[in-house]
Amino acid sequence: MKIAILAYDRMTALDAVGPYEVLCRIPNALVQFVAETPGSIRTDTHGFHSNLAIHAEARLEDLPDPDIVLIPGGSTGTMEVMRSERALNWLRAAHATSQWTTSVCTGAFILGAAGLLQGLQATTHWASRDFLAQVGATYVAERFVRQGKIITAAGVSAGIDMALFIAGQTGGDDLAQALQLAIEYDPQPPYDTGAWERATPALMQRALREIRCAGGMEHMAPT
Amino acid sequence: MKIAILAYDRMTALDAVGPYEVLCRIPNALVQFVAETPGSIRTDTHGFHSNLAIHAEARLEDLPDPDIVLIPGGSTGTMEVMRSERALNWLRAAHATSQWTTSVCTGAFILGAAGLLQGLQATTHWASRDFLAQVGATYVAERFVRQGKIITAAGVSAGIDMALFIAGQTGGDDLAQALQLAIEYDPQPPYDTGAWERATPALMQRALREIRCAGGMEHMAPT
Repeated sequence: MKIAILAYDRMTALDAVGPYEVLCRIPNALVQFVAETPGSIRTDTHGFHSNLAIHAEARLEDLPDPDIVLIPGGSTGTMEVMRSERALNWLRAAHATSQWTTSVCTGAFILGAAGLLQGLQATTHWASRDFLAQVGATYVAERFVRQGKIITAAGVSAGIDMALFIAGQTGGDDLAQALQLAIEYDPQPPYDTGAWERATPALMQRALREIRCAGGMEHMAPT
Repeated sequence: MKIAILAYDRMTALDAVGPYEVLCRIPNALVQFVAETPGSIRTDTHGFHSNLAIHAEARLEDLPDPDIVLIPGGSTGTMEVMRSERALNWLRAAHATSQWTTSVCTGAFILGAAGLLQGLQATTHWASRDFLAQVGATYVAERFVRQGKIITAAGVSAGIDMALFIAGQTGGDDLAQALQLAIEYDPQPPYDTGAWERATPALMQRALREIRCAGGMEHMAPT
């Protein structure tokens, strides 16, 4: 089972690494980070206050036919990928033969730019929810949304939940339950403020401010 | 506020990237991945079936006095760090002036090798819990355990919960709540199998097998 995770400049690291930590433990899975230009890929917070970069060894074209495609979100870098015909063509071709085509956070807009979300329900980071209509999708406030073989996950941390679902679909509940235990995923967030539907306007404003300060994804205007 | 995350060969990526995604959004935080040898740092699953590597730009000595130190876990690489006098000396010196000295997963054994857990309660990945006594600590089955300024978190995903706690202690509940919303951390795991205390022996055996297959952390024998 070949799994391709798209890496690109100013991606959000946890969007990719959360699912990676689950998917790489599926027996016989080969998970590759693929990029238009392999090498050190800066994350969205790189250069602001922090220095995280992910190393991608493979080119897009090295993995033309992945069984699972995962597109993470990011900040302005996401919009650049949305304009890259090379990346979109790779994604469309990969989707033609994939078992699962998935996104996390604003990665949904890259699926959308490739024309894959037209007429579908989908989800994305809450701060970008109003823009999904621009790629022909209807926003749904769920942790992840499955439409056929396309799955879109909500913001950043939601990719972990989605990856466990995929592991269950791929290898059975027993496998997915074991992987959940392997990463000791028994979340106990210190607050109940992870869902925008339950957040106050003031909290949402503050969250947007911290996202912008860190150079992370914000309101996406995909056109 | 200077935050140092130790990067080392065969570390577990999510141990570091989960907390990173929270901590890098604390206003005025500077988060640096530091390594004995900067460059592309392979994760514990690299070379087995996958190719994730993290790029660390800074040397340990570039950040001698971080306010927060975070030590991720890993597989056999963790044991090598436990034998590195250079890394342990850096950690001891950093701890002398830190506000918080923290670990995720088997990173606790590196704190232990530096002598920092002697006589304390601590936690680690469940699969390595029996070995904490060898570094003088008493295992506690909690998501994270605070003892003064030392915080140890449980396996892999637990670092996210710990990082939100630290954000709250550092910048107040309002900030931490906003950061939880920023990463849309409203976890909805598809199963209730993330805690070993509720797992069957068969599930624990399978989880251990998948961990080993992926080259990840397993039973640590720190001596």
